[in-house]
Amino acid sequence: MFLPTLLNQASPEQMETFFIPAWNLEIIGTYAQTEMGHGTHLRGLETTATYDPATQEFVMNSPTITSIKWWPGGLGKTSNYAIVLAQLHTQGKCHGLQAFIVPLRSMNTHIPLPGVVVGDIGPKFGFDEVDNGYLKLENVRIPRDHMLMKYAKVEADGTYVKPPSAKLTYGTMVFIRSMIVGEAGHALAKSCTIAIRYSSVRHQSEIRPGEAEPQIMDYQTQQYKLFPLLATAYAYKFVGQYMNQVYHRITGDISQGDFSELPELHALSAGLKAFTTWTASAGIEVCRMACGGHGYSRCSALPDIYVTFVPTCTYEGENTVMMLQTARFLIKSYRQASAGHQLSGIVSYLNESERRLQPQSVSSRPTVVNVNDLASLVEAYKLRAAKLVEMAAKSIQQELQKRVSQEDAWNNSAIDLVRASDAHCHYVVVKLFAAKLGEIGDTGLHSVLSTLALLYALQGIQQHSGDFLQTGLLSVPQLSQVSQRLKELLAQLRPNAVALVDAFDYRDEMLNSVLGRYDGNVYEHMFEWARRSPLNKTEVHESYHKYLKPLQANL
Amino acid sequence: MFLPTLLNQASPEQMETFFIPAWNLEIIGTYAQTEMGHGTHLRGLETTATYDPATQEFVMNSPTITSIKWWPGGLGKTSNYAIVLAQLHTQGKCHGLQAFIVPLRSMNTHIPLPGVVVGDIGPKFGFDEVDNGYLKLENVRIPRDHMLMKYAKVEADGTYVKPPSAKLTYGTMVFIRSMIVGEAGHALAKSCTIAIRYSSVRHQSEIRPGEAEPQIMDYQTQQYKLFPLLATAYAYKFVGQYMNQVYHRITGDISQGDFSELPELHALSAGLKAFTTWTASAGIEVCRMACGGHGYSRCSALPDIYVTFVPTCTYEGENTVMMLQTARFLIKSYRQASAGHQLSGIVSYLNESERRLQPQSVSSRPTVVNVNDLASLVEAYKLRAAKLVEMAAKSIQQELQKRVSQEDAWNNSAIDLVRASDAHCHYVVVKLFAAKLGEIGDTGLHSVLSTLALLYALQGIQQHSGDFLQTGLLSVPQLSQVSQRLKELLAQLRPNAVALVDAFDYRDEMLNSVLGRYDGNVYEHMFEWARRSPLNKTEVHESYHKYLKPLQANL
Repeated sequence: MFLPTLLNQASPEQMETFFIPAWNLEIIGTYAQTEMGHGTHLRGLETTATYDPATQEFVMNSPTITSIKWWPGGLGKTSNYAIVLAQLHTQGKCHGLQAFIVPLRSMNTHIPLPGVVVGDIGPKFGFDEVDNGYLKLENVRIPRDHMLMKYAKVEADGTYVKPPSAKLTYGTMVFIRSMIVGEAGHALAKSCTIAIRYSSVRHQSEIRPGEAEPQIMDYQTQQYKLFPLLATAYAYKFVGQYMNQVYHRITGDISQGDFSELPELHALSAGLKAFTTWTASAGIEVCRMACGGHGYSRCSALPDIYVTFVPTCTYEGENTVMMLQTARFLIKSYRQASAGHQLSGIVSYLNESERRLQPQSVSSRPTVVNVNDLASLVEAYKLRAAKLVEMAAKSIQQELQKRVSQEDAWNNSAIDLVRASDAHCHYVVVKLFAAKLGEIGDTGLHSVLSTLALLYALQGIQQHSGDFLQTGLLSVPQLSQVSQRLKELLAQLRPNAVALVDAFDYRDEMLNSVLGRYDGNVYEHMFEWARRSPLNKTEVHESYHKYLKPLQANL
Repeated sequence: MFLPTLLNQASPEQMETFFIPAWNLEIIGTYAQTEMGHGTHLRGLETTATYDPATQEFVMNSPTITSIKWWPGGLGKTSNYAIVLAQLHTQGKCHGLQAFIVPLRSMNTHIPLPGVVVGDIGPKFGFDEVDNGYLKLENVRIPRDHMLMKYAKVEADGTYVKPPSAKLTYGTMVFIRSMIVGEAGHALAKSCTIAIRYSSVRHQSEIRPGEAEPQIMDYQTQQYKLFPLLATAYAYKFVGQYMNQVYHRITGDISQGDFSELPELHALSAGLKAFTTWTASAGIEVCRMACGGHGYSRCSALPDIYVTFVPTCTYEGENTVMMLQTARFLIKSYRQASAGHQLSGIVSYLNESERRLQPQSVSSRPTVVNVNDLASLVEAYKLRAAKLVEMAAKSIQQELQKRVSQEDAWNNSAIDLVRASDAHCHYVVVKLFAAKLGEIGDTGLHSVLSTLALLYALQGIQQHSGDFLQTGLLSVPQLSQVSQRLKELLAQLRPNAVALVDAFDYRDEMLNSVLGRYDGNVYEHMFEWARRSPLNKTEVHESYHKYLKPLQANL
């Protein structure tokens, strides 16, 4: 975050001063944004940077306990510089958040500089290897040219110069969120690789009495746990690739002064970040538990994958807040469409909503969804999203009729809004998965990925069957068809399951999982791994001499 | 597990020899059941105990790598004795699993005894403080009286004497599973206490621009995350109490030779264990993430609650296997009812299923569910369970018509069977919650717990709306009513939320959570907690001298 922020917001002179030293690791930088009492809601940050024209310096302060910077990675003990987000005060006025480069520790001794109170925030769920830190600034003075000035500026006399667009600073965030979507695909793909390989190694119980214990991959329940997640991993990888392409295309436009697509990308990256990280986090745990007791051992690697991935649900924008940001864009788009504007891009389906989704037309419209046809299912997901956006918009309207404020109406409809965002994201994922199939020429590959895409779409329908029934998009008999078809797809995927995870191409060194070994030689290596446990260094552990023996002597 | 197993299965003489020393901690015992390759499927265990009448000893062996005992708590370094489950061989015949008391380490030196290969299995997701261990037995000889002989026996000449009932050894398991249901309530109650208290301390974002940041407990989405979990915690605590009472009543009957209720209790404890642990595990993580970034810090206590609780989904019977055990009982009961037998107990609702749940009668039956009436909702859950049991039974029947074996028909219907068990358990929980209300005299208490029970029931319906629509138990307009009513209940519970978690009465010392402090003084204590981090012992960490300084010197 230190380097990308410099890249995005430093002036050419600042790049020269800071980027190369940071690249060379003379400057070890961190990005200090969140505070003890403030996270997702950026405007709430309390750290201040007050310009003093007499010395041409900014005076940095943490005015309250809640304003102490909290969580930045490597801040506690490692970094000697930080980019600090703070409220800029100059000429008696607050101009909102700006980024400042603050030296933290002596370049010679690594001792914290005067006024810098810095340290580690303590043990966490995971990331034991990272010194996430706190930073309390007490009248720390930095030169004027330490404010990042590519866009906004403070002149020598303290005059504030506005940036050309307020949206520019969001660039890094959109980029990181797009990356996280891909990461969700990766984390889930790794987890599926481990669980599916181990499920083909592990024999347990019996299907037919007297016969050998079958591979647990042969149990329908195990397939039902893992194959939809496998499909999801593929889906998110494709979505991640797509987001990356869009991001680079749009940043190209932005550098040429065209911001038109930024709101859509911002909304899409927010919602998809939430949608994919929630599902992937839960999915990693399903994979872990699908490995039985051994999933709980760190030799499976799954506990580490989980604790490393799950914070993505919270950082770079808390997921529920993200869903509501997407909802804000959807509702705005819906209102524009209702007012007769023609929408373009991913929300263009809302153009049709007023026309096609009147309650009467829904119930009278013949059910046309074909549960065996992916294109037809994409259409069903689209109509579901349109209907749920409409329901959320109507909820807001109903609240407003009770004479509550716009803001309370929004809050009182928040459950519906999140649900609408979720349906929107789900539609986008199904649509992109289907679109990806069009790029695949190889017939065999196309066939197995089509099965996977169909499984993804149908399982989503089964999980959200209430939505599809409620909106009249599917009938009760069709739902039984969906269940039946799902079972067939599981059986159909069974022979390809191991190949589909091998295709992710994670080397054993990357997976670092005894259960997920490519050669399937799990049990010998598990015993070997266990024998190397730190507790096994001596036959009789020191705790015996220290505690047990004295305790037993006193009996 | 060592002591309860002795209590249940040791003869009076064995009690004298082993129980008192174990109680006094001279014997530090563990219970060694699971093996590296074998967990839930007990019959698959490979460890052997072969009786040698010449010496009147059992010869204990781990014949394969997968037969190595794996996971028992305290086995690695602490225990000097284990109760080992092994296949009993005598007079050339295998008589299945028996429990044997095996000395592991010298009582004087704590050094492993000859033939005993024992150690720690390595780092895990949680339970760092426990030395879960492995045990490989190589021709370890133990005296004949070290087999637990309260029920089954081996006489001096090697004659095997059968136990009076094969079901007896399941007693401990049923007991532990019942306990776990209560634990699910506790774990969730603790998590809700932390999240709801902190949500009342934490201010974030803004509902109305310009006004102060509201308590995050005022956001509808936050209420929707936490209040249903709060209701669930209450529900599981009540279910746990009920299970405990039933267990003690039934064990009373068993000691008098009456095993009639054991199958029902076994099935109920299996399914409810799975149902409650899955929901509670996911719920703990929802609570953790509802605390934002700070939930990830161990100062929240939530990471520790999670890693300590989540193995209950796997141990004492893997959850999916548990669900299928309950399903087996349900299908058996359903078939009995279909054959005209009158069922009693918790499954008596299946008596009505044949009569009332014909497809035509479902669709033609007027919808009578009143979404504001708990008794009516209990009825709806009951009919849903009946319908889903019926659907699972029919799936098996359809598979059989394809001329597959009974076992394959079962496996090919496993998704439906788990779904039926889930619905059955959900019905039991809602029913017991409703029944509990009848015991509460205090009007105010009754009122707020009724709101909680209604919330629990309605949120379950919303989550499984597909089921209720598919089975014709609810109509689309009723579903909208459910959503509307849920929002009202959230608002209604808001003023009582903190009181409802305070009522769980967890002292700060028990919660051990900075975020969940009773006095709400979170931020000062978080700073204090952080400053005590091990990494903060020195201003400049040794890693600087060891790694950073040399690295930078080479630049």
